[in-house]
Amino acid sequence: MAAFLKSELETLGASVEYYYPGEQEPGLELPPILLGRYGNDPAKRTILVYGHYDVQPASIGDGWGTEPFELTVDEKGRMFGRGSTDDKGPVLGWLNVIEAHQKVGLELPVNLLMCFEGMEESGSEGLEDLIKKEAKGFYKDTDAVCISDNYWLGTTKPCLTYGLRGCSYYQITVSGPGQDLHSGVYGGAVTEPMTDLTNIMTTLVDNKGKLLIDGIYDQVAPLTEEERERYQSIDFGIETFYEALGSETVCTDDAQETLMRRWRFPSLSLHGIEGAYSSAGAKTVIPAKVIGKFSIRTVPNMELSKVTELVTAHVNKVAKSLNTNNTITVGLIHDGKWWIADPNHWNFRAAAKATEQVWGVKPDLTREGGSIPITLTFEEETGKNVLLLPMGTSTDQPHSINEKLDKKNYIQGTKLLGSYLHFVAEEKAE
Amino acid sequence: MAAFLKSELETLGASVEYYYPGEQEPGLELPPILLGRYGNDPAKRTILVYGHYDVQPASIGDGWGTEPFELTVDEKGRMFGRGSTDDKGPVLGWLNVIEAHQKVGLELPVNLLMCFEGMEESGSEGLEDLIKKEAKGFYKDTDAVCISDNYWLGTTKPCLTYGLRGCSYYQITVSGPGQDLHSGVYGGAVTEPMTDLTNIMTTLVDNKGKLLIDGIYDQVAPLTEEERERYQSIDFGIETFYEALGSETVCTDDAQETLMRRWRFPSLSLHGIEGAYSSAGAKTVIPAKVIGKFSIRTVPNMELSKVTELVTAHVNKVAKSLNTNNTITVGLIHDGKWWIADPNHWNFRAAAKATEQVWGVKPDLTREGGSIPITLTFEEETGKNVLLLPMGTSTDQPHSINEKLDKKNYIQGTKLLGSYLHFVAEEKAE
Repeated sequence: MAAFLKSELETLGASVEYYYPGEQEPGLELPPILLGRYGNDPAKRTILVYGHYDVQPASIGDGWGTEPFELTVDEKGRMFGRGSTDDKGPVLGWLNVIEAHQKVGLELPVNLLMCFEGMEESGSEGLEDLIKKEAKGFYKDTDAVCISDNYWLGTTKPCLTYGLRGCSYYQITVSGPGQDLHSGVYGGAVTEPMTDLTNIMTTLVDNKGKLLIDGIYDQVAPLTEEERERYQSIDFGIETFYEALGSETVCTDDAQETLMRRWRFPSLSLHGIEGAYSSAGAKTVIPAKVIGKFSIRTVPNMELSKVTELVTAHVNKVAKSLNTNNTITVGLIHDGKWWIADPNHWNFRAAAKATEQVWGVKPDLTREGGSIPITLTFEEETGKNVLLLPMGTSTDQPHSINEKLDKKNYIQGTKLLGSYLHFVAEEKAE
Repeated sequence: MAAFLKSELETLGASVEYYYPGEQEPGLELPPILLGRYGNDPAKRTILVYGHYDVQPASIGDGWGTEPFELTVDEKGRMFGRGSTDDKGPVLGWLNVIEAHQKVGLELPVNLLMCFEGMEESGSEGLEDLIKKEAKGFYKDTDAVCISDNYWLGTTKPCLTYGLRGCSYYQITVSGPGQDLHSGVYGGAVTEPMTDLTNIMTTLVDNKGKLLIDGIYDQVAPLTEEERERYQSIDFGIETFYEALGSETVCTDDAQETLMRRWRFPSLSLHGIEGAYSSAGAKTVIPAKVIGKFSIRTVPNMELSKVTELVTAHVNKVAKSLNTNNTITVGLIHDGKWWIADPNHWNFRAAAKATEQVWGVKPDLTREGGSIPITLTFEEETGKNVLLLPMGTSTDQPHSINEKLDKKNYIQGTKLLGSYLHFVAEEKAE
């Protein structure tokens, strides 16, 4: 796929080099990252675009309606195929833009820098190092970044995405006996680690989604009036959310508050327990060592180190209050920072104008609840504004069976990417 | 093994028939249960003895010091081999008793009925039906029952066992969304089933082992003075318990109270959660449906149906207080009743006298925290007193690698079984 993409780009006149990030394991080379350039006019702005040529695994046996690695278009114009929307369609969009300009004899109004990787579905292994290395090298001319690798909020209205939550993932370890015990033989006489662990886990969050860790909300940026208005105008109904959930088990039935809870407020989820009995049926075990997993989705202006400090203090305080003889520790497994861009930046203004031109509607300004760590890396390393400009819709089913991209979104989306390059070439930096 | 045992018994002059309990799965016959009789003198008492000829799996690759299916005796007289103590040694003990009587020309003072099964390590499949069917048939002459299939409390003092706790196993199911959700995308906006479940689980028991379910202790028989004294005389130190646990994480450091907590008071253990994330590492999932598992060890005079009623009422009350929109149900997976025998019964008095004769010491009167469901079935179906008369010690490692039976316990234990038959033949029924 790397070779195909390199060859396509070179046919279009782009220069492309492979960057090999190294081995995933001894003897297994990671796929190359493509560093591309099209145009080198110092008078033009330079836009760095990112995409990925790898896809999730797929097999017709998983339940696909069509062969996942043959593009199949149905009568509704749905283009089924693995990677159609995530992320081969959007990557091809950029290539189509170059080709279309050549065919109508129009010069591209910007220089394009490209970063196309092949490990996105496996944690973008090697990419961060490349960006850190080349931000001031191959990518040094970057004026703004555009990533087309997410989705509309619904099916009818395009959007620009300017924020992502971070994620700080923790584990609480409670250990007591030297090995798992039979609950018949020992139950009642030993301090059971599971009892301590569940007692701590319940003190972290309530079932309305409120974090119960002292001081955590002090770090959350207050909601501004401009922000509140932005949410009011977003095209999103609670019924759509019920449909996505498959239930109505929500913390609020207010659609706009739901979006804010997903995008701009922190949340805490209890993921599970390692070391306890987790299979179907019944086992009479007293687990000797149990590890509770939870994570906090972080938002501006939460400081990651401060979050970990508050979590640690909270767990230690509760652990002490339990007056237990088990050993309790809490630790961070990993954290990744939230990302927020200025949606009034010229990069976003250009994308909004392009959207109005192509789709005839002002785009929603959205955020997402999940993290795309590489977004933040692009911003931090280049120091430039990063825009997420999605092509597909919420019904595309990336990562699932029957992934698709609507033909309309592919064609209009390609026009949008092209139009964006024209607007971004001209938009005043104020 | 069934054929070997049948042949050995027949060589000794016992009559033996196979009972086939049926198929475990289509095409897979369950191993036969051996129904044996030795002696048929209406003037003598008839003792029903139970044992099993199946063993746990074993392979030298599991870490055994010797080939598990070759009996290997070391210089300390430890007879290593799978089944040595659980339960081939004790079963052979009964055969040795018959053989020894024949060799010295002594008549056995009782009639022996035998029940030797081959599925004990797999839930005694088919045995309960056989006992229910034959208690008033093949086993109708039974005056008392003796089972040698448990262990001494320690390594120095023999014991007679007169009680076992029951086990009522429950699950609490909390379900909300139609499928697992990404915590980044949905966290904060949905009522998470894990939050509700951990909140309920923490209300069941505290970390000192106290059950928090209303009314549960009203069902527990009060401790009598006789009982308290019985515990005082038992040879058991807290250090032994620490050693078995591999830690000092106990609810009390009083040895006798520890025994009571394990044997004669109820306990509640939280075993784990099905449906939540349970592996190593980090996964940012909001589990859609989680099933919390816990069980209560029951003791006299708890009524199983009442226990389930109290548990259900408690969980429903807590669930209601959570004011959740998730669906919460609680259900019984299985229950088995506790068992208690009268340790002053002639069957026990005979065994105590035999112990004093063979070992030179009064046996401890012990109970066990776990359940051996078939014990209760023998009692209920025959209506006779059941005695647990162990041969091996607490260090025998049944079910583990390097299972052994000490030669001393095998020889003295065989003598004990023989001596027991003489005392039980004569002990006044008062």
